[in-house]
Amino acid sequence: MNVKLKSCISAWKEALGDEFADKRPETLRRYGANLTPYGAQPVAVLCPGDQNELRRVLEIASQHQVPLYPISRGKNWGYGAAMPSSEECAIVELSRLNRIIEVNQELAYAVVEPGVTQQQLYRYLQDHNLPLVMDVTGGPPEASLIGNIVERGYGQTQYSDHFLFSSGMEVMLANGRTVTTGFGRFENAKTTYLYKWGIGPVLDGLFTQSNFGIVTKVGVWLMPEPEYFGVFFFQVEDETVLCQVIEKLRKLRMDGTLTAATHLANDMRVLSALQQYPWEEAGGRFPLPEEIRKKVISRWGISRWNCAGGLTGSKPEVLSKVKRIRRELRGLCRVRFISERMLAWIRRLAPLFKLLRGVDLNQKLAIFGLMKGIPTEKPTLGCYWRKRCQAPASNLDPVADSCGVQWCAPVIPATTRDLTEMLTVTREITDRCGFELNVSLNLVTPRALSCIVGIFFDKEDAEQSSAARRCNEELHSRYIELGYIPYRSGTPYFGTYIKSSTSPTSTFDDVCQEIKKALDPANILAPGRYGIG
Amino acid sequence: MNVKLKSCISAWKEALGDEFADKRPETLRRYGANLTPYGAQPVAVLCPGDQNELRRVLEIASQHQVPLYPISRGKNWGYGAAMPSSEECAIVELSRLNRIIEVNQELAYAVVEPGVTQQQLYRYLQDHNLPLVMDVTGGPPEASLIGNIVERGYGQTQYSDHFLFSSGMEVMLANGRTVTTGFGRFENAKTTYLYKWGIGPVLDGLFTQSNFGIVTKVGVWLMPEPEYFGVFFFQVEDETVLCQVIEKLRKLRMDGTLTAATHLANDMRVLSALQQYPWEEAGGRFPLPEEIRKKVISRWGISRWNCAGGLTGSKPEVLSKVKRIRRELRGLCRVRFISERMLAWIRRLAPLFKLLRGVDLNQKLAIFGLMKGIPTEKPTLGCYWRKRCQAPASNLDPVADSCGVQWCAPVIPATTRDLTEMLTVTREITDRCGFELNVSLNLVTPRALSCIVGIFFDKEDAEQSSAARRCNEELHSRYIELGYIPYRSGTPYFGTYIKSSTSPTSTFDDVCQEIKKALDPANILAPGRYGIG
Repeated sequence: MNVKLKSCISAWKEALGDEFADKRPETLRRYGANLTPYGAQPVAVLCPGDQNELRRVLEIASQHQVPLYPISRGKNWGYGAAMPSSEECAIVELSRLNRIIEVNQELAYAVVEPGVTQQQLYRYLQDHNLPLVMDVTGGPPEASLIGNIVERGYGQTQYSDHFLFSSGMEVMLANGRTVTTGFGRFENAKTTYLYKWGIGPVLDGLFTQSNFGIVTKVGVWLMPEPEYFGVFFFQVEDETVLCQVIEKLRKLRMDGTLTAATHLANDMRVLSALQQYPWEEAGGRFPLPEEIRKKVISRWGISRWNCAGGLTGSKPEVLSKVKRIRRELRGLCRVRFISERMLAWIRRLAPLFKLLRGVDLNQKLAIFGLMKGIPTEKPTLGCYWRKRCQAPASNLDPVADSCGVQWCAPVIPATTRDLTEMLTVTREITDRCGFELNVSLNLVTPRALSCIVGIFFDKEDAEQSSAARRCNEELHSRYIELGYIPYRSGTPYFGTYIKSSTSPTSTFDDVCQEIKKALDPANILAPGRYGIG
Repeated sequence: MNVKLKSCISAWKEALGDEFADKRPETLRRYGANLTPYGAQPVAVLCPGDQNELRRVLEIASQHQVPLYPISRGKNWGYGAAMPSSEECAIVELSRLNRIIEVNQELAYAVVEPGVTQQQLYRYLQDHNLPLVMDVTGGPPEASLIGNIVERGYGQTQYSDHFLFSSGMEVMLANGRTVTTGFGRFENAKTTYLYKWGIGPVLDGLFTQSNFGIVTKVGVWLMPEPEYFGVFFFQVEDETVLCQVIEKLRKLRMDGTLTAATHLANDMRVLSALQQYPWEEAGGRFPLPEEIRKKVISRWGISRWNCAGGLTGSKPEVLSKVKRIRRELRGLCRVRFISERMLAWIRRLAPLFKLLRGVDLNQKLAIFGLMKGIPTEKPTLGCYWRKRCQAPASNLDPVADSCGVQWCAPVIPATTRDLTEMLTVTREITDRCGFELNVSLNLVTPRALSCIVGIFFDKEDAEQSSAARRCNEELHSRYIELGYIPYRSGTPYFGTYIKSSTSPTSTFDDVCQEIKKALDPANILAPGRYGIG
């Protein structure tokens, strides 16, 4: 370790105390570890306890020219978790800035700091008996709300687009100044958390998927508990039918029948959230042989494609929506509907069902919970898909357990043609690399499908790891070539895919670099993140 | 005129031709004229015919250090129309960049240039028999779509928030470089106009309500023609009841019953769109005496508050929404509903009604047309409210006719308390300044009301003009003091209200200036616009 770095870490230790400025090798290893086949270790891990300490951390970093990699909770699994964008960085973890600053029941929003987790806000709403629903992701309950907002992640309800349904950011810049966006820049503004755009230029978008500042506070919109809630679902075995179904769903999403982000998952996506790889039945072979696939999914009642979406409103409204969905999909698939009351019954019967058929219905119903804003760690089981050891029953820690997951998330037009092409290309590549096709499709907007392709592997198996790397690279290149650009990137390949594939006539990169130079001239914050700095 | 400016204008004339680089005094007067009591004239008016000419205009401006004030169509009435933010500017009007580049029926969007007007896109959809609906504003049919998007204006349907429902900007920076936002920066991207955020930082918001670049192209989302359409409406005479109604509407907007931006207009707002000031009945007195107000509004069947909102969906869905609205508002007001078919009948009967009762129903129904995306110049009649001469029957030109209008548009929380306070304050100020209270309230988002307060006056009357100025200043200061920040500003008072009232601890202004310096170091584009540069 060089002298500059040494004196920098001493200064941090002085500012935060030994416990919260950590450079022990095991700590650095833990924060560098992640589910992708890539890795990078930080030089230290800093956990400021409040904004003043965070400001001090920034000051020291600037003085010593040591870059920082800010994370909220570091649960960005499958996109690189906590790992820094470059090995010279110290991680600043914001888990101690974990106040729920305000929950406004009347106007249905919460104001949170970056350390606040999905589970924490959910518990708060439950404990205070507030009739408010949050949108959650299928990611870990311990993941940060702000972390997901700044990565522009999404969930399953009407408020699925987490960046869109937030309002009023407070951001700390590299030099320690605090900027409030939207109306928040006016003293006593009463609408900072109610109206997103404010007056003058909208800066919020700058602080997502970038490295221009550290978001330290944001307003998160919540939904009032719906009068009536139910879930429609259907299954499609034939993929050409699925590709037709998409056109119908687009229509229903566009005309307002579907207001939530409807979710379609293929057999392997559903299965991987229900059980680990059936090593025994497959006789140790992988990828999963066709006859075993059929056997296992039929046991769970899974089809090749499985769709579910939440419906809310008054009871007659929801029921007429169900009718409308059925009418539109007639001849293509059979649409079923379960009301919340029926769901409660099924949950009660689940133990009996498990006894009789050996199938865990509650694990299967977790996705329906997501549609009502209940965080769950059940989908995390997917990370253990290719592991040969048994996953723990709870408190899953896929990073510690060397699970391997990589997400590649192209956005495609919601048309038969594009879905067919995307699936063909994906199947060809994953097959060739030795992985099961594992895909979900999300109608996050009425016009586009956000596709989440998962590469699940065992990180302890070097061969699988290197295949996963190859697979991820091929998928990215091929998608970008076809015009199916991912909505999000993973830390290990920021530079590779985003920067170099930008059209040579575009000046988007230049503009980002110029803004970076203006707001963080010493390139202190997350250098290289999303190809910037 | 100084030498530098002279040689600059010569260079522009050479680049564009005499006709399109105009510095005749009458032209400069025309472009400086506007409906507010303020004014500023440009040094020249430039109309480039394409992007290359626009780039050349920028080059010449940079060489000679003469700033430019870009406008689309200059119909930003009531906010300063075409007038430049400073008198040293040459106006660049983009009316000749008026191509509708693409209309995609399948995925329901249009890609337009800044010269494309509301009327032009509407006509295009009609002429090509496309079952697509656009969201329009109550502004002039000849207003630019992009002009309204970059000012973050709104209309009346589900797609009321024009900035939100656009995707994929192409922007020319001061140095002539072109930036494409979102996925557009990737060659062959298939989702530029389908998914707004793209990958990496979201730059789009930077180019709204600012002066960082000139938007030269954008994708505008369109709605599929609804299966069933109708309008609900109700009237409230007692303002304390109105303030309770707001809580119910907020609830209905938040639970998804109301998806469109519901519009509430007070008596004077409705009346001013239907007829000019009743000079004769008022015996020349103004503001309108109470007894005359009552008489005139009862003739038109107007109440003190009048609410209307569009409902779309399948027929049973719309009808159950009507039921839900009625249930919620029971005891407060009587909710009526007109289906599209009934509307068509009323339109047919309008001439008869006019004959019998002397009331022009079609003028009254124009607002319902807006809810279906039909541009209309009918609300423009409002500009002539205080004029003593008769407004023309069509082709209204309020700027040429010296009409006086100023909008002040505070955003308030959608609560009884805040609406009561806002109306009390507004009435006190407009009364004192001698204007009728003229307000509309728009539930553009579920949590906040965007209030549009109109000050209507006769610009030829010096006393009214100065009162209008005073009134506007008082309203702005008072609103900002109360935390009800406007969502938009007028050209004449960019610096005054936005900059100086920013909280002293906020660095929002600094960040904007730094970005300005990075993207337009010579401050060529619209110096001072929204307080920047």
